[in-house]
Amino acid sequence: MPVLLSTPDPVCLLPVPGVRLGVAEAGIRKANRRDLTLIELAPGSRVAGVFTTNRFCAAPVQVCKAHLPAGTIRALVINTGIANAGTGEPGLAAARATCEAVAAELGLAADQVLPFSTGVILEPLPVERLVAGLPAARAALRADGWFDAAHAIMTTDTLAKAVSRQVQVGGKTITLTGMSKGAGMIKPNMATMLGFLATDADVAQPVLDALLKEVTDLSFNSITVDGDTSTNDSYILIATGQAGNGTLTDTASADYAAFREAVLDVSIRLAQAIVRDGEGATKFMTLQIGGGRDREECRKVGYAIGHSPLVKTAFFASDPNLGRILAAIGYAGIADLDVAALRVWLGSQGEEVLVAEQGGRAASYREEDGARIMQAAEITVRVDLARGDAAATLWTCDFSYDYVKINADYRS
Amino acid sequence: MPVLLSTPDPVCLLPVPGVRLGVAEAGIRKANRRDLTLIELAPGSRVAGVFTTNRFCAAPVQVCKAHLPAGTIRALVINTGIANAGTGEPGLAAARATCEAVAAELGLAADQVLPFSTGVILEPLPVERLVAGLPAARAALRADGWFDAAHAIMTTDTLAKAVSRQVQVGGKTITLTGMSKGAGMIKPNMATMLGFLATDADVAQPVLDALLKEVTDLSFNSITVDGDTSTNDSYILIATGQAGNGTLTDTASADYAAFREAVLDVSIRLAQAIVRDGEGATKFMTLQIGGGRDREECRKVGYAIGHSPLVKTAFFASDPNLGRILAAIGYAGIADLDVAALRVWLGSQGEEVLVAEQGGRAASYREEDGARIMQAAEITVRVDLARGDAAATLWTCDFSYDYVKINADYRS
Repeated sequence: MPVLLSTPDPVCLLPVPGVRLGVAEAGIRKANRRDLTLIELAPGSRVAGVFTTNRFCAAPVQVCKAHLPAGTIRALVINTGIANAGTGEPGLAAARATCEAVAAELGLAADQVLPFSTGVILEPLPVERLVAGLPAARAALRADGWFDAAHAIMTTDTLAKAVSRQVQVGGKTITLTGMSKGAGMIKPNMATMLGFLATDADVAQPVLDALLKEVTDLSFNSITVDGDTSTNDSYILIATGQAGNGTLTDTASADYAAFREAVLDVSIRLAQAIVRDGEGATKFMTLQIGGGRDREECRKVGYAIGHSPLVKTAFFASDPNLGRILAAIGYAGIADLDVAALRVWLGSQGEEVLVAEQGGRAASYREEDGARIMQAAEITVRVDLARGDAAATLWTCDFSYDYVKINADYRS
Repeated sequence: MPVLLSTPDPVCLLPVPGVRLGVAEAGIRKANRRDLTLIELAPGSRVAGVFTTNRFCAAPVQVCKAHLPAGTIRALVINTGIANAGTGEPGLAAARATCEAVAAELGLAADQVLPFSTGVILEPLPVERLVAGLPAARAALRADGWFDAAHAIMTTDTLAKAVSRQVQVGGKTITLTGMSKGAGMIKPNMATMLGFLATDADVAQPVLDALLKEVTDLSFNSITVDGDTSTNDSYILIATGQAGNGTLTDTASADYAAFREAVLDVSIRLAQAIVRDGEGATKFMTLQIGGGRDREECRKVGYAIGHSPLVKTAFFASDPNLGRILAAIGYAGIADLDVAALRVWLGSQGEEVLVAEQGGRAASYREEDGARIMQAAEITVRVDLARGDAAATLWTCDFSYDYVKINADYRS
């Protein structure tokens, strides 16, 4: 059951001028499932992308990296069912053939197309089925296709994830609509499984590229479900430029600040939605690590907590077995960490209790307080490392029977 | 259910001259449970120890590190129920008080005692109950106490873990008997939860120290159940010197080679027993990583596979969803890994099939072969990184519903 997450309301998903989306049933791995999504972008759109650092990165990721630099992307194509990762040269050929087919369908060149795949690794992509599904996806193209597309990119997701927002930039109302998918194999390193955010803002390409890297670090690269960095992680930021706001080039301007805040907000909500719908999740945890010497060591501590199966199963059980959090902090890899100086709090719904200080349980801590907070669906673990001013926030979920069930059954 | 592991046969656990063991019910955390073990060593015994690198290392670990260097250890005391970790200064005082009570009981000095604790973190050790149990443990001291002691040090273990062996050294038959405990919070870093190996061999202290570090690296430091490095990991090697083999000082001698092989063999069996009895384990996996530039990168790849919840749940399901192994290799952190060059095999019971090569599934691979091998209780994953001559072997287990159940219920 997803944690405080519901299906997006279709009327809240705003069309982005310059973007049309269409979905189809291509039968990539199973029949009668919408598994193919086509996204068409108006001429002049600018696109930025960040991708997985997994060395076994998928064939479509390799093709995306090759096609992006020319700066003339006009279409995206996304299939579920097969990840087209761990597929060697035939996989690359399949991804290229996909781009060629999309290009033929839309009257583009193949290098104007970005391909994305998600699903089972190590199995070949049935490219002929994908290509056969393209005319239907093209026929379905429409500006208000976000709701259907957010569903068509799902795999083990139980709910579609999509968010819209509007913000004033350069005296114009600009729109941002994004969608993401992913529930397992989630410990993004550059980006999550798949995320797409489109806006009609007019943004200079270098600004768009730098902004995407910055917000990805603070959103998708700050979540973990199971610590498994996927082969297919991709997060794409599209700016069609149709809002007439005047090209955003000055990152010191108030306009840029407003736009950045909106992009970050939507990105965080899309990233958090993946954690809330994490495989088997029953709890959503925010890990606020402060007082570090640098952001990287705060992230290390956060990931040690967020990846510990013992911590995650204790949260699943609503059991304030908080020594497991101390153990995770202790093995996070900070060699000179002073465990007598650090402090740990547990909080929920406006309440926060000090759990540990001076190397042990806080004198003021009462088991019944911990037990009450652990019952909540959203819980914050706050750590003060007491050695500097750096901080980082991560989001994760608990570890339940259903995680095992979902992943033991996924292919069957 | 443990994987191909059974309770040690008491008659196969050989007394080690110079070592007596006694257990008692002290009611540390729950009543009517043997939770206190006392081990008495003859004068002249030499003891080496390796301990967790967790910064939240337990109070008894800190006391062990303080007491070992003098080289006059004569007793060990082990309690279960409470780990005495994350307990600050009061925890240190409790560990010291434990040593003083044991010393008073046996007519020793407090710094001749090594204390060990295992159980729940962050809760205070009821030292008065422990001390009250000491006379009964002392009264129970006997040379053939290994079987009882191996049971009394268990926590979530379902079976006791103990092994004996004899080997000829310096024309004498020398005996080695060891025991270990641990089933969760197992990703030792220096040693496992608790392991004790005693021998009557006469071994020079520097040789004993170096040998322990070497074999720990190849045994306890090569296993993982859940990736959580405990606060209490300790592995202790005791040499009472009563075999009359003449002090082992020359590490180039045939005698040393025979002794080293026996110590390593017993250590690996004790370490593997922990994995076989890993919380919820249904499969035992050997991860053989070869062709690396150095041993460390082979271990990185092995741990990435061995810690991946997706890999572990696939093994639980006997599902050859082997792309998950490739994904784990890909995110193991080798930045310049050539995925087209590496190869992956899956094996069991003398059979081995090539799964992946040239960046994808091997042409010769048949799903039915993978499915058949995945049914076995013991499975080997072999990886050739194809970039050097270094190798490392790790052992791990799968990830089942019962892991979640055990850890969601552990304190209740």
